Amino acid sequence: MDIKQYMQQVGKQARAASRLVAAASTDAKNRALLAMAAQIRAHQAELLAANESDLAQARTDGLDTAMIDRLTLTAKGVESMAQGLEQIAALPDPVGEISNVKRRPSGIQVGHMRVPLGVIGIIYEARPNVTADAAGLCLKSGNAAILRGGKEALHCNQAIAACVRAGLASAGLPETAVQVIETIDRAAVGELIAMPQYVDVIVPRGGKGLIERISKDARVPVIKHLDGNCHVYIDDEADAAKVIPIVENSKTQRYGTCNTAESLLIARGVAQRFLPAIGRMLADKGVEMRACEESLVILHDAGIAQDKLKLATEQDWFEEYLAPIIAVKIVDGIDAAITHINTYSSQHTDAIVSENYTKAMRFLREVDSSSVMVNASTRFADGFEYGLGAEIGISTDKIHARGPVGLEGLTSQKWIVFGNGEIRK
Amino acid sequence: MDIKQYMQQVGKQARAASRLVAAASTDAKNRALLAMAAQIRAHQAELLAANESDLAQARTDGLDTAMIDRLTLTAKGVESMAQGLEQIAALPDPVGEISNVKRRPSGIQVGHMRVPLGVIGIIYEARPNVTADAAGLCLKSGNAAILRGGKEALHCNQAIAACVRAGLASAGLPETAVQVIETIDRAAVGELIAMPQYVDVIVPRGGKGLIERISKDARVPVIKHLDGNCHVYIDDEADAAKVIPIVENSKTQRYGTCNTAESLLIARGVAQRFLPAIGRMLADKGVEMRACEESLVILHDAGIAQDKLKLATEQDWFEEYLAPIIAVKIVDGIDAAITHINTYSSQHTDAIVSENYTKAMRFLREVDSSSVMVNASTRFADGFEYGLGAEIGISTDKIHARGPVGLEGLTSQKWIVFGNGEIRK
Repeated sequence: MDIKQYMQQVGKQARAASRLVAAASTDAKNRALLAMAAQIRAHQAELLAANESDLAQARTDGLDTAMIDRLTLTAKGVESMAQGLEQIAALPDPVGEISNVKRRPSGIQVGHMRVPLGVIGIIYEARPNVTADAAGLCLKSGNAAILRGGKEALHCNQAIAACVRAGLASAGLPETAVQVIETIDRAAVGELIAMPQYVDVIVPRGGKGLIERISKDARVPVIKHLDGNCHVYIDDEADAAKVIPIVENSKTQRYGTCNTAESLLIARGVAQRFLPAIGRMLADKGVEMRACEESLVILHDAGIAQDKLKLATEQDWFEEYLAPIIAVKIVDGIDAAITHINTYSSQHTDAIVSENYTKAMRFLREVDSSSVMVNASTRFADGFEYGLGAEIGISTDKIHARGPVGLEGLTSQKWIVFGNGEIRK
Repeated sequence: MDIKQYMQQVGKQARAASRLVAAASTDAKNRALLAMAAQIRAHQAELLAANESDLAQARTDGLDTAMIDRLTLTAKGVESMAQGLEQIAALPDPVGEISNVKRRPSGIQVGHMRVPLGVIGIIYEARPNVTADAAGLCLKSGNAAILRGGKEALHCNQAIAACVRAGLASAGLPETAVQVIETIDRAAVGELIAMPQYVDVIVPRGGKGLIERISKDARVPVIKHLDGNCHVYIDDEADAAKVIPIVENSKTQRYGTCNTAESLLIARGVAQRFLPAIGRMLADKGVEMRACEESLVILHDAGIAQDKLKLATEQDWFEEYLAPIIAVKIVDGIDAAITHINTYSSQHTDAIVSENYTKAMRFLREVDSSSVMVNASTRFADGFEYGLGAEIGISTDKIHARGPVGLEGLTSQKWIVFGNGEIRK
């Protein structure tokens, strides 16, 4: 069977299974999730062995440390996969929820019902835990899933897939509700993203290159996450007690996450007051500052070491460093801050620090990003912190789902009509 | 300036204008809408003259009657465009609405804010009234619009565009918030659907061919409406008093609309009881029946004229006739009906006629269409009937918006965080 035939068959099976999981009871879905967790715990040794064989191959292939890190599954990692599935079982079932029912002048009652999207294709890279997470989230939201993990994790993903299938079967659900692609041929991805008859939406998880490639070629809607060039804007009415903690947490709590601040904007009126202390805090943590001419002078005069200071270029305003580097710019005030952010931001997460009500509300409304915050760290942009229970990813798209995507983002709402024999006049 | 440069400029202007209309007050948007309406009334003579010149060209080009019909603007049509804009002004403003705010254990309060999508590209065919409608809906929802009407309506669309611009200017809003493309070169469409940096979503309105072409080539999300192959299923527990009115209204109230029923399914248990009367009603109205073998016998025995009866082929189950033709099939019951609909329906609108609670609720949940109804005519699937006030179209997509799309469908929700200096632990 060639790749095209194989993927068509996978798609057909997923479509058929999607009807069954869409109609499945909450109880059956939860039993399957708990059974998957039990299977994963029971097969810890097999999962670790499969991961070991992936790791051996990765070392032979000379993959870099970061990749090997992401690929590595530990006993603790196995346990947290199992717990993740149990947490998903504990979340409320979004499917079938009826809302907003209103009686119309014609007599009909019209409302919404939350329904699964159908078949979700998930394309990801090395991390094997995504296989269990994504399977769990798709199932709980009533969707069938086609998972395509990285070729580096093939053995481990297949071992996890076996646990998932066993869990489904034990609850009387079709094993084809979650299919993990068994080939490492990259053509499989090309097929997966071009079968609108079988796949309703694609969620790519991984580096920007992967996501851009998929978005470009997909013939199916893509829920995507590109850069996280997040901003903190220190307004001239900022509360001094909040400035340093928010900048410090937003930039330095973790450097490699998408909700980490990459640019600091500060109103001219408070630059002399706040920048020296911010600069010293950042320099102490080893963060390099790429500063505009004006802020560079202030930071230099504050005695920040030369090796931590650099003149920013236009490119710096766009940059997602994912590293101990931050761009720093002095702006006239709220208008300039909003314009700068709407020009350079990746529309992920941006925060203002201000005590002024009107400016705070304008920032919330006018900054066109998926998460906009007042007096809080950008690091809060996260499905768990927002109370979603779990997240399949963070969307920087504007339609369907913005920001952290949980179970609800894997569903949509259809219209339902309760009639009593009404006809249209 | 070549087409590419021209469209890039239009896109750039739209993006800039979108920031201003997103932040515009409800009052300014409503004043602009009322001013547009006043302009349209004041320029009735110019609009009709421009339409006359389009019609003259259309006759010279030998366009068919249906097309000329859609292209024709009357004094009454001008008035109803103006009234349409006034109705949009009267609708609640969806932009900025805050909902679902919850306090999290970290102390932050997280919620949603409804926000415009940004720039909406609308591609449509002959009807000039779409120019005013679409301009009004996009403005009220805080979006900038790029409108690309049919080349047949060029003069009339430009005359309407002048009224729209004057209305925007009188309320202090940028004239570039609504741009009507001034070239008839089809390359403009190709550019419009391939500028994700300037356009956030495309809404094509027109024939299936247009929509399929656009969806295939778009590099931007498309809110699309394909077929309306709608079903009425008569369950074996249907109330006899509801059967004929619902079938009659669903099929025969209008033949050319997308929410018209194209297929009738009937449970075997009641086929003998209901089909003869249904068949006579349909035949009296001149509707041809494409019937399965079993129903053909019943209809034949009921004395329906031979020229109204035909044996259905597999293709008939897929067909959107938009004509006095209906496919008729006897099914075993609710399961077979749901399976048939989920196999052949275009996922637009499907209805069940039944007094059985559990079957009604299963139909609502398991039929995967944008509108699902119990004991009501499929003809109710419509923005006005659903209480949206106005509609930009009906979506048969599954993500973002399903079914009739009003102001809300032209917006999305971002996350907002109200903090008090919180940082992530």
